[in-house]
Amino acid sequence: MTTAARRAALRALLRADDLDGLLVTDLVNVRYLTGFTGSNGALLLSAADDAHSRFGTDGRYVTQAAAEVADLEPVVERATALALAARAADLGIRRLGFESDAVTVDAHAALRKAAGVELVRAPGLVARLRVIKDAGEIEILRRACAVADTALCELLDQGGVRAGRTEREIALDLDFRMRALGADGPSFDSIVAAGAHSAIPHHQPTDTPLRPGDLLKLDFGALVAGYHSDMTRTLVLGSAAQWQRELHALAHRAQAAGCAAVGPGVPTADVDAAARDVIVAAGLGENFVHGLGHGVGLEIHEAPALGATATDVLAAGMAVTVEPGVYLPGRGGVRIEDTLVVDGDTLTGFPKDLLEV
Amino acid sequence: MTTAARRAALRALLRADDLDGLLVTDLVNVRYLTGFTGSNGALLLSAADDAHSRFGTDGRYVTQAAAEVADLEPVVERATALALAARAADLGIRRLGFESDAVTVDAHAALRKAAGVELVRAPGLVARLRVIKDAGEIEILRRACAVADTALCELLDQGGVRAGRTEREIALDLDFRMRALGADGPSFDSIVAAGAHSAIPHHQPTDTPLRPGDLLKLDFGALVAGYHSDMTRTLVLGSAAQWQRELHALAHRAQAAGCAAVGPGVPTADVDAAARDVIVAAGLGENFVHGLGHGVGLEIHEAPALGATATDVLAAGMAVTVEPGVYLPGRGGVRIEDTLVVDGDTLTGFPKDLLEV
Repeated sequence: MTTAARRAALRALLRADDLDGLLVTDLVNVRYLTGFTGSNGALLLSAADDAHSRFGTDGRYVTQAAAEVADLEPVVERATALALAARAADLGIRRLGFESDAVTVDAHAALRKAAGVELVRAPGLVARLRVIKDAGEIEILRRACAVADTALCELLDQGGVRAGRTEREIALDLDFRMRALGADGPSFDSIVAAGAHSAIPHHQPTDTPLRPGDLLKLDFGALVAGYHSDMTRTLVLGSAAQWQRELHALAHRAQAAGCAAVGPGVPTADVDAAARDVIVAAGLGENFVHGLGHGVGLEIHEAPALGATATDVLAAGMAVTVEPGVYLPGRGGVRIEDTLVVDGDTLTGFPKDLLEV
Repeated sequence: MTTAARRAALRALLRADDLDGLLVTDLVNVRYLTGFTGSNGALLLSAADDAHSRFGTDGRYVTQAAAEVADLEPVVERATALALAARAADLGIRRLGFESDAVTVDAHAALRKAAGVELVRAPGLVARLRVIKDAGEIEILRRACAVADTALCELLDQGGVRAGRTEREIALDLDFRMRALGADGPSFDSIVAAGAHSAIPHHQPTDTPLRPGDLLKLDFGALVAGYHSDMTRTLVLGSAAQWQRELHALAHRAQAAGCAAVGPGVPTADVDAAARDVIVAAGLGENFVHGLGHGVGLEIHEAPALGATATDVLAAGMAVTVEPGVYLPGRGGVRIEDTLVVDGDTLTGFPKDLLEV
């Protein structure tokens, strides 16, 4: 889908909310609607058409904006949002929506002074479009997931996971391989957690060396063309102890149950419950301390949320993670995570059986 | 300075503003005041003492918070800010400040419902502390700058910059070297811009191969223990043409003039002017399309701003960049940048003479 088609789809939402325009200041939303990848950009979208819309950026990005946003008239000023708001009236906009879930209280006060028009709270409009991925976006996510798969394969094939190496070294190795495979970078700070560290859900890699018998939790992804992949695997250095096998088998069963529950029309809370029930039944419900998963796309965490108290309903075209974890503080933890398309296939392909390296 | 000492310093600012407490939700500020490095944390700081203050995070970070924030009582709930606000009254807080420059309009509305106390706009309080770096912070910045220096030395010594390599390959090489030298990552997406791309101030690396005679602009830094270094150098592949020499010499003179103007008590606009005047005098004022620099620390861009319309005044302990650039669209550009301590030395040490590689 072109960015022009996305803007057209957004116009339908604006009209339904009786808005003449939307001031888009969230940079990820700006990218989605215009293709702009710089660090200062905003879009004044008229509900009428592109001719009455403007793209704002500052002097550093004039050349880049001309290439990336060729189909919208530019406004070049450092205070992009204020400059665009000030032009709303001249472009025929009277009721101007703003992203109240992204605009700060102070920025809103400044906008009110700058805009000679009515400012209306309009949260989550672009998110409603972004949550449903088009075929092009799915393909990019597929590539991002394939990069992560390949990086992990290479890492293991080439002996990159072995006792004596540190968590940091393994994270760097993974990140380097993903970049060499075409990623723009890791999609978030790679989590490499060995031994007791694996019981910390979001552990950051340290200089701790891996020891034989350690659980090793790897949670990482590749950033490709703005899209984020996300995968977790937990393996064992050497032969797994019985408790490690059982913990892994439990997480694996829960993850399979979660994946099986995914489908269009299913409440996300039900998907969380499908996986959580397996862990609760094993008496370890208190050790699964987070939600089951989240949407992925232009952000590593985006709608929909998959959690016990989440209220979203899955739909075709959504891309979500399913990532139950069971953590035994001081001993170790296991998390297994895939990225799936709700009405499609699982994009992360690395095997999920317990690997003894 | 300990995080407890920072919280004590913040209390003095709260009392001066007649606030009983501050709800800190900006994650970087939370880190500065507590040491917490996770992705979901907030601080309810009582103006009285730490015993009446609370640290909030969610289940994923319980173990990490116990280690990083041992001196504050934790509150574990996913909606950390709301959970903390709801406890304000019980902790004796009646006038509760919130970071209106970070809290969104929608989050503010939710806070108003959750807090049984008066919410008062209190922007920029923690920033007033953060802008002055203590000796420990300066040392970390020095290490971060040294990592970037060494990475560039290694890259050049080992023939990493040569015709045929792509911008992406060089960016990956630099990033890998910084990580191997102990950085947690690059402090922002490294800018590697060859040939005409060097005229784009914030160009993102492409698969374009370097050609003999290209200008090559490298703008990058290392992230060490949360602190960001920032340096730009522009070199030439092979022998420089006369126009490239002149452009480089102009940027170099402007950068030296900017650095010489830095000192305690100097308005940042005057520092910008010192460098800008050199470029304007050469008839290229229109080709210096951005501000002169910015503060660096826990964020890559933070106070103070150094620009033509900036209103800050430099003070001892500030760490700032000085980075004039001259860009000739379609031909090439030169930017030279250092990170300096206002009353101290220049932390980036790589030579600034024109290098022909």
